[in-house]
Amino acid sequence: MNNHASVPVGVLGASGYAGQELLRLLAGHPGASVAFATAESAAGETLEGFDLIKAADAPLQRAEIVFSCLPHGVSRRYVHEVRAAGRRAVDLSADFRLSAEAVYGLTEVARPRVAGADLVANPGCYPTAALLALIPLAQRGLIDPSREVVIDAASGVTGAGRSPRRELLFGEVSEDYRAYAVGNEHRHLPELRTTLAREGGFTGDLVFTPHLLPVKRGILETIHVPLTRVLDQATAEGIYDAVYDGEPCVRVLHGALPSLKDVVYRNRVALGVAPVANVRRPRLTVIAAIDNLVKGAAGQAVQNMNVMLGLPETTGLSC
Amino acid sequence: MNNHASVPVGVLGASGYAGQELLRLLAGHPGASVAFATAESAAGETLEGFDLIKAADAPLQRAEIVFSCLPHGVSRRYVHEVRAAGRRAVDLSADFRLSAEAVYGLTEVARPRVAGADLVANPGCYPTAALLALIPLAQRGLIDPSREVVIDAASGVTGAGRSPRRELLFGEVSEDYRAYAVGNEHRHLPELRTTLAREGGFTGDLVFTPHLLPVKRGILETIHVPLTRVLDQATAEGIYDAVYDGEPCVRVLHGALPSLKDVVYRNRVALGVAPVANVRRPRLTVIAAIDNLVKGAAGQAVQNMNVMLGLPETTGLSC
Amino acid sequence: MNNHASVPVGVLGASGYAGQELLRLLAGHPGASVAFATAESAAGETLEGFDLIKAADAPLQRAEIVFSCLPHGVSRRYVHEVRAAGRRAVDLSADFRLSAEAVYGLTEVARPRVAGADLVANPGCYPTAALLALIPLAQRGLIDPSREVVIDAASGVTGAGRSPRRELLFGEVSEDYRAYAVGNEHRHLPELRTTLAREGGFTGDLVFTPHLLPVKRGILETIHVPLTRVLDQATAEGIYDAVYDGEPCVRVLHGALPSLKDVVYRNRVALGVAPVANVRRPRLTVIAAIDNLVKGAAGQAVQNMNVMLGLPETTGLSC
Amino acid sequence: MNNHASVPVGVLGASGYAGQELLRLLAGHPGASVAFATAESAAGETLEGFDLIKAADAPLQRAEIVFSCLPHGVSRRYVHEVRAAGRRAVDLSADFRLSAEAVYGLTEVARPRVAGADLVANPGCYPTAALLALIPLAQRGLIDPSREVVIDAASGVTGAGRSPRRELLFGEVSEDYRAYAVGNEHRHLPELRTTLAREGGFTGDLVFTPHLLPVKRGILETIHVPLTRVLDQATAEGIYDAVYDGEPCVRVLHGALPSLKDVVYRNRVALGVAPVANVRRPRLTVIAAIDNLVKGAAGQAVQNMNVMLGLPETTGLSC
Repeated sequence: MNNHASVPVGVLGASGYAGQELLRLLAGHPGASVAFATAESAAGETLEGFDLIKAADAPLQRAEIVFSCLPHGVSRRYVHEVRAAGRRAVDLSADFRLSAEAVYGLTEVARPRVAGADLVANPGCYPTAALLALIPLAQRGLIDPSREVVIDAASGVTGAGRSPRRELLFGEVSEDYRAYAVGNEHRHLPELRTTLAREGGFTGDLVFTPHLLPVKRGILETIHVPLTRVLDQATAEGIYDAVYDGEPCVRVLHGALPSLKDVVYRNRVALGVAPVANVRRPRLTVIAAIDNLVKGAAGQAVQNMNVMLGLPETTGLSC
Repeated sequence: MNNHASVPVGVLGASGYAGQELLRLLAGHPGASVAFATAESAAGETLEGFDLIKAADAPLQRAEIVFSCLPHGVSRRYVHEVRAAGRRAVDLSADFRLSAEAVYGLTEVARPRVAGADLVANPGCYPTAALLALIPLAQRGLIDPSREVVIDAASGVTGAGRSPRRELLFGEVSEDYRAYAVGNEHRHLPELRTTLAREGGFTGDLVFTPHLLPVKRGILETIHVPLTRVLDQATAEGIYDAVYDGEPCVRVLHGALPSLKDVVYRNRVALGVAPVANVRRPRLTVIAAIDNLVKGAAGQAVQNMNVMLGLPETTGLSC
Repeated sequence: MNNHASVPVGVLGASGYAGQELLRLLAGHPGASVAFATAESAAGETLEGFDLIKAADAPLQRAEIVFSCLPHGVSRRYVHEVRAAGRRAVDLSADFRLSAEAVYGLTEVARPRVAGADLVANPGCYPTAALLALIPLAQRGLIDPSREVVIDAASGVTGAGRSPRRELLFGEVSEDYRAYAVGNEHRHLPELRTTLAREGGFTGDLVFTPHLLPVKRGILETIHVPLTRVLDQATAEGIYDAVYDGEPCVRVLHGALPSLKDVVYRNRVALGVAPVANVRRPRLTVIAAIDNLVKGAAGQAVQNMNVMLGLPETTGLSC
Repeated sequence: MNNHASVPVGVLGASGYAGQELLRLLAGHPGASVAFATAESAAGETLEGFDLIKAADAPLQRAEIVFSCLPHGVSRRYVHEVRAAGRRAVDLSADFRLSAEAVYGLTEVARPRVAGADLVANPGCYPTAALLALIPLAQRGLIDPSREVVIDAASGVTGAGRSPRRELLFGEVSEDYRAYAVGNEHRHLPELRTTLAREGGFTGDLVFTPHLLPVKRGILETIHVPLTRVLDQATAEGIYDAVYDGEPCVRVLHGALPSLKDVVYRNRVALGVAPVANVRRPRLTVIAAIDNLVKGAAGQAVQNMNVMLGLPETTGLSC
């Protein structure tokens, strides 16, 4: 499927859910070929047709771009090795998302910076959906900073990783639903807050509460936005239409709200809005949905790679 | 299973999910015996060992208490017939929840009124969870009326009924998740607002957004409460402990948050709290979970029946 | 819920799925009270209202009957200690199912022996369903020993235990389905074969293939029986009706086939039959369904306890 | 995504699950462009970016190949219209599978005939998996005709269609599992038997029992094959390796068995084998898995279209 003109790339940490998805996308990508893929306990096995080797044995030089799907905390060192080898890197961990060393790769917002970047920090899954929903409102000064933005997010289980833990067993998760990291302490919050301030100028309070859904993949965020002025449905949709006009990976719904099935297995965020009735002050509810493994991880990483290589942005992606 | 000393009861509308659950509970109840059970299209069939007859043929006189699980709008007429026949009624529809004709049967709050009632309006599933979470805070003046209370609720599919509709097919719901009735227009909102004002004195704004979960049963509500003063974890838990001390069907968690599996198949609400960090003004997140078919419908109906008959309140119930 | 006339019982290994279910059943049992419950890593925690202690600290003397839900291989030693302490035991592991030391506790078949037993080996989940389906046919010489009996069984995930293993993660099991122990090597096969020979006189070949279902609980077995003579639907159902007449925990369906929802959360086997058309020699398909945690484990253990204590057999059970 | 050199195709009946999947595949197909897509109740809506029109309004002349995803019984008339308009057709219904008018499009078996066909009858989902598993053994005379081949198949819910029916509601299917069409009367049986006789020369008895799985998509068949001689694991795998060498849509596993997750969202059949121990006569268990919507329907239809058009066989398909 990959021809001789394709660009060699490498994948560090290919055996987790994000890594598997990335390999699957790269296997079908017409402009890239996988030079190596690593895994630790699964080294020696084959995945999507690629032989897995240990990260320590990875021939970094053979790849033009190296993706790291290594765990937070572990990734940093390997990414530095990639850079030391003179290769460009896309890091899917959280290790560089708040760092000046990297370009924060929310593609729709940072496209020109991504194009020239040597190191791209691929955004977290929750922030990707929340930021694409909130930045357009924040940039227009529509979010009332005196009231809190409340975000209730629900994620499929692959977002919690593939390491065996009792609370992630099917017997525990199926037919269950629960909040976690309650109390506004989720590790994605600084990334969300920092980026919303930088890109949208909003510095008010955010309350972010994630939940674990009994589904494999997908994130849906219900975002409660206090407004500085009334927005009716058409006006609100018009704002998003204008901002995302021509964006291949953003779908603005009209008179409808997204659900997970609109986005799974696609590199897409879907957005829908509803003005809030029966309250005294103006509010808007925004629903944002993504596939946590695609637009929330591996797909956005490929989207960023395409931008870095000057390929059409959706090459190898289903949007 | 039922002996001659048991009280005869009737069930109108037994073939839906709430009706089935009610029959199941009554079949195992040591103090009640089912005198009749009705269904329309399923008339002639057997359910939990009971022969289903048409509602028009129900021998209302033979029951001391008649439950109605008929649809909203249809129930009113039949309940009036039950009352005209001199029998007491527990109505699981929404038809009397805002009416002065009935006692609103949130058992923990209205126990003495339920005991003497001839007509009990069994609360809606969403309000049951929200009210048991919010009334204690409202009664103490702890909810800041100048900021909105935001409630994101997620319900299992049985809450949407048993009529065949495409959007409730397994092929549509499994691996999906979506909000509905967005824009603060859900039909349970007036019930919630009215009762919270009456029982807790709170008249501020509520924003209520329900979601459809890919599970059969269970409701989890994530309730974002703006506070008039800071509450730490222990103080917040202490308030609930004091209010619900001795309540057999309320479980206040300490240092933990409920999930659906804590409540399904039980007539129980489980409550947990978390103070919100990283915001400028005091806030508390309260998580409330119930089984929509049990404490949210059939179980609370039996709990109310027990109170009406002077039986121990949890007779025939697993709490 | 337990009064002073109730019999004290103990539970070894209460934190697995079968142990939890057993504690839940005992908590609601009017004739038994839990004297102790053990768990190793969860010692110190509370489950269903009972404090968990280490098995080594269990006051065996305080219980009249001790249940062991310990793992296969581990259980044997503790059960011997129970017997050495002069207490009766119900062992839910496989350790005594092929041993002359114990009565094999398939209640419907071995009721009189169970009543007087000091040690009952509670049957495996798969054999319970298969044996109740096959013994009536075997006893009547209806199974053709020259052709193989093929059993395809599908089990919910709780049957695989609660230890964290990657292949049991929700992210792996949901939306998946697979066979395991293929090649007729499942560890339940000797139990099945031995019992079918002893109780039904059948010594022909069995091919047993288990599958893992993406559900929490329930087993459905599709049993392909080669017959020595033609049986029509009514005749086949009549055989089961006659054998299981009056049995509270066996449900013989007529003109219908069981599904998991007929049996979950109940101590019941449901059986249905269909003669096989379009083949040259007589065959019958028998479908048997149980809840693996109830009739397949904890429920049958309580049923056996009831028999051992001379209580009504379904006390504390929902059949 | 489709350029001017692409072949125009039409889709009749695009709103069901197979039709939706077909549109999705065609939308991403580099060699085909969708000239029209029809639906009845959904006419006027948009699906995968295509406007749905009524079948009666379909401009059949504008397409070189027309796919029919219309229901069995309805499809025949429209396919005849397509042929009368001089266009080639791929019919996904059962209407032509036993007819001499059409080529039976099991691609791996009938490739040359498909290439020149004007009308291809796309195989049923269950037969696709079973035939690719059984034909290699049948052709070599390895299946003992004196004993029955027993096939237990389990299918995801999309196989039952998208019309609202109570038994397909999430509330009924989730956590459930059941057999249906028991008694060897499934409508796919003649297709299976006829093709196995024609392509493999096997005319012995088949017992086919389908089951409904609580998953969206995927079929797994557990095929119990009585053998004429002993086959060990390597020999059995070697037979499949030889037959399917170079086949892009068949995956023969070695020392492993397929599960649904190996095949969903792919146009692939996965096959694995296990010799049966502990029986007197030689037997082999073969497990075959496909995605019922892809290799079992829309994907194989596209595969056939590719063959008909002389395109590389996997164009637009993920195998």
